[in-house]
Amino acid sequence: MMFSELPEDVARGFYEAGQTRTLKKGEHAFIQHDPAQDFYLILSGWVKLYRETLDGDEAVLDVMTGRHIFGESALFEKSTYPFSAVAVEDTQVLAFPFSYLTRRFEDTPAVAIGMLRAMSRYRAQQTMEIEHRTLQSAPQRIGCFLLRLVQPQTTGAFSLTLPYDKTLLASRLGMKPETFSRALSRLKDDLNLKVVGPTIEIPDIENLADFACSACSASFPCDDLTGRGKRDATA
Amino acid sequence: MMFSELPEDVARGFYEAGQTRTLKKGEHAFIQHDPAQDFYLILSGWVKLYRETLDGDEAVLDVMTGRHIFGESALFEKSTYPFSAVAVEDTQVLAFPFSYLTRRFEDTPAVAIGMLRAMSRYRAQQTMEIEHRTLQSAPQRIGCFLLRLVQPQTTGAFSLTLPYDKTLLASRLGMKPETFSRALSRLKDDLNLKVVGPTIEIPDIENLADFACSACSASFPCDDLTGRGKRDATA
Repeated sequence: MMFSELPEDVARGFYEAGQTRTLKKGEHAFIQHDPAQDFYLILSGWVKLYRETLDGDEAVLDVMTGRHIFGESALFEKSTYPFSAVAVEDTQVLAFPFSYLTRRFEDTPAVAIGMLRAMSRYRAQQTMEIEHRTLQSAPQRIGCFLLRLVQPQTTGAFSLTLPYDKTLLASRLGMKPETFSRALSRLKDDLNLKVVGPTIEIPDIENLADFACSACSASFPCDDLTGRGKRDATA
Repeated sequence: MMFSELPEDVARGFYEAGQTRTLKKGEHAFIQHDPAQDFYLILSGWVKLYRETLDGDEAVLDVMTGRHIFGESALFEKSTYPFSAVAVEDTQVLAFPFSYLTRRFEDTPAVAIGMLRAMSRYRAQQTMEIEHRTLQSAPQRIGCFLLRLVQPQTTGAFSLTLPYDKTLLASRLGMKPETFSRALSRLKDDLNLKVVGPTIEIPDIENLADFACSACSASFPCDDLTGRGKRDATA
């Protein structure tokens, strides 16, 4: 997250300039093509970023949670939001006016550099996403998503809870719901995963990593996650 | 491109700090995981950015030409290159040491802001790419690629030359060669495209746009291309 890159007093200035907003489940922070005046930091809850095609299909670009910022790229894109942002559960955000950000760009070099760093990390994630949509099978993509929820250095068996519902997860992974169901069944059959509601039991992390990460240019545990602790790797 | 965002004297400083390098066809500027010391501006030719998976498959992330920069994101990623870069034809680049860039970050706010702007535009392209790989069919993806080679405001019939060979184009679009061939055949049959070697004749731009852009959240001509002239939209 951008703010973790900033000197403490600069970060504090941002927090003081931010306005708290509560978004009810289903409420939009903004709609694609809206004139952009603010960008947002998620304090709690989950936000879905998406676009709609002319055909009426929805492309989910990301599903984000606490400490992530969104909407900031609108500053560089003709001042309209390039996607829509909707709360997928009750969510609290801090809204920052772009005018505050551009003033800090001028007087505090660390702000633009912190934002570059955050944007660069996000770009690396997108690059990986493009690679995965090309080379990973649907079961591998689900496996990859699960592995990224596992704490690095975990070995053996692991049980986790999905952070949001399976329909949204399917869209987040760019799959139709029926593709997602079939792929999850294959993981259950081939790798003995147990799925009870939102809970998933993985009997052998290494086994799942061997399966999912063979079609990836990184290896488990993922580079961008192993930095956790030293630096916030979630943004 | 980043440099077009910079005040003239700052851009001139960069050009003076750059070293010209010639890459023969097939020669690498760098390999994934190499320690990163320089980033590059393409002067002429074409460069392919790619990664290799543990399985040995190749994911083509981008194919770039003149006035694009590449490798710059390594500055923010543990100082190693996150992908490999190879010349797909004889190519001239300018290499800039990162040390020059970081010094300018400190003394010239416009540099970080220009880079943010360029990175943000690249990110928007990646977002579109993720959307397309999810929602567009293979023929639509080829159609989209062709339309982006057409000058905005063009109507009716148009003839164009593919910028690089079809095998590379297939990888660039995330398709296997046989998927690409089938998809191109379908475009020939359904939309009467004529393909002679690298030359493609489109009998009706609007027709192709109706077909390709229906599964896209933007509409033809693409937002990021219509700004051409006013501002360099190619980076």
